[in-house]
Amino acid sequence: MMVLGRNNVQISGQGNRAMMFAHGFGCDQHMWTAVARAFEADFRVVLFDHVGAGQSDLGAYDAAKYASLDGYADDVVEIGRALDLSDAVFVGHSVSAMIGGLASVKAPGMFSDLIMVGPSPRYVDDDDYVGGFSHAQVEELLEFLADNHLGWSAAMAPVIMGNPDQPELGAALEQSFCATDPEIARQFARATFFSDNRADLPKITARTLVLQCREDIIAPPCVGEYVHAQVPGSRYTLLDATGHCPNLSAPEQVTAAIRAFV
Amino acid sequence: MMVLGRNNVQISGQGNRAMMFAHGFGCDQHMWTAVARAFEADFRVVLFDHVGAGQSDLGAYDAAKYASLDGYADDVVEIGRALDLSDAVFVGHSVSAMIGGLASVKAPGMFSDLIMVGPSPRYVDDDDYVGGFSHAQVEELLEFLADNHLGWSAAMAPVIMGNPDQPELGAALEQSFCATDPEIARQFARATFFSDNRADLPKITARTLVLQCREDIIAPPCVGEYVHAQVPGSRYTLLDATGHCPNLSAPEQVTAAIRAFV
Repeated sequence: MMVLGRNNVQISGQGNRAMMFAHGFGCDQHMWTAVARAFEADFRVVLFDHVGAGQSDLGAYDAAKYASLDGYADDVVEIGRALDLSDAVFVGHSVSAMIGGLASVKAPGMFSDLIMVGPSPRYVDDDDYVGGFSHAQVEELLEFLADNHLGWSAAMAPVIMGNPDQPELGAALEQSFCATDPEIARQFARATFFSDNRADLPKITARTLVLQCREDIIAPPCVGEYVHAQVPGSRYTLLDATGHCPNLSAPEQVTAAIRAFV
Repeated sequence: MMVLGRNNVQISGQGNRAMMFAHGFGCDQHMWTAVARAFEADFRVVLFDHVGAGQSDLGAYDAAKYASLDGYADDVVEIGRALDLSDAVFVGHSVSAMIGGLASVKAPGMFSDLIMVGPSPRYVDDDDYVGGFSHAQVEELLEFLADNHLGWSAAMAPVIMGNPDQPELGAALEQSFCATDPEIARQFARATFFSDNRADLPKITARTLVLQCREDIIAPPCVGEYVHAQVPGSRYTLLDATGHCPNLSAPEQVTAAIRAFV
């Protein structure tokens, strides 16, 4: 129960193949509810919370381990080992798209398919690489978050979510941000926004689908295209959706794209 | 995924302690839905189907392995190992009460608590032991089952369920009986009704609760009292319920008794 309790693993659905869903920063497994449910008839659906999020075991939080995305990827591999996963499908949103990519490289054979929803291997611009943020911008964002967790959540959630015509979506994301332990949120934000996993993309051998929204302030289309270009043999689908959380704002489109791919 | 897929394992709920529910003959994990849901707030609820039942992998059925309850108990241990269970609660209905007892002996430390709902270590009378059935009666029952699976289901389900004032319960059990593969049902019935696990009861070291209905044609109170007397330190609760399936006919009582015990 150690690993499954630590990451609040939930298993539902049928079939011999597993589909694991991983949530992004400031969220938990509930952000996948609508999409995951659609696959329960055909897949054994595995949901979990990263340590520090949702109903995970906060006592397992280790600032050193989770200072980089590797720590989170190690947890994904441990969950996969505990469940004896092979040839499974990994669906990761935002930072968890890259976490899934790292996990797939760490444990060959565990994930045959990787679906990256709004991925970014690096959020900060670098020479001719466009991540979408300057180093100073990210430092400012992180300072604001450290200073005023609730204010940051209120300001950022609607911007990240987009879809201002559905204000309830931004409100839900804000609530989710606020529910996170502030210190853990600060550290996870730093691990996320200063990550640079560009060199890991060519190592990914899983069949990969990049799902990109046409307007996304966190992971703009040029970043999705970069991921697609760097992951060998990957496919790229530009969703007719906006914002950074199509699993919440356009679940039917995300579901259809995943279904078409697997 | 091997073991979890084979036994259609589903995991829900919260908490660091697991509660595993096991269904009886001719049923599947859905017979526990009402009771299990009540524990999701405090326990990691593990549901599964025995091989041959429900949505288990029929390809894993092995007549030799499942000719005795040991084969089923081995599966429970394998599920427990796959999930790294320790100090978990096992709740078994009917034949699965005994299967849980065997599993608890095979894997010390896996199950700290054992809740036996309508258990019987032997269904056939023997010298001064009263199981409730003569050998000839059981042979007749099994012949009837082999001859006419649907007729047997229609005749037996309401008798086993009791509670004639709630005919929908018997009808549901009949449907469940009918949905089972006839050959597997025949073999599981033989393994169940000719089992003799009286000598295993004194080996059980888990904290044990025997839940007994005051009228039960399959496992009468004298059998429940025998189990209570043989399992060291066990507790015995006579439910104000009738029939062999209080988890379906009196789920609130079963839930309350389990809660009071754990």
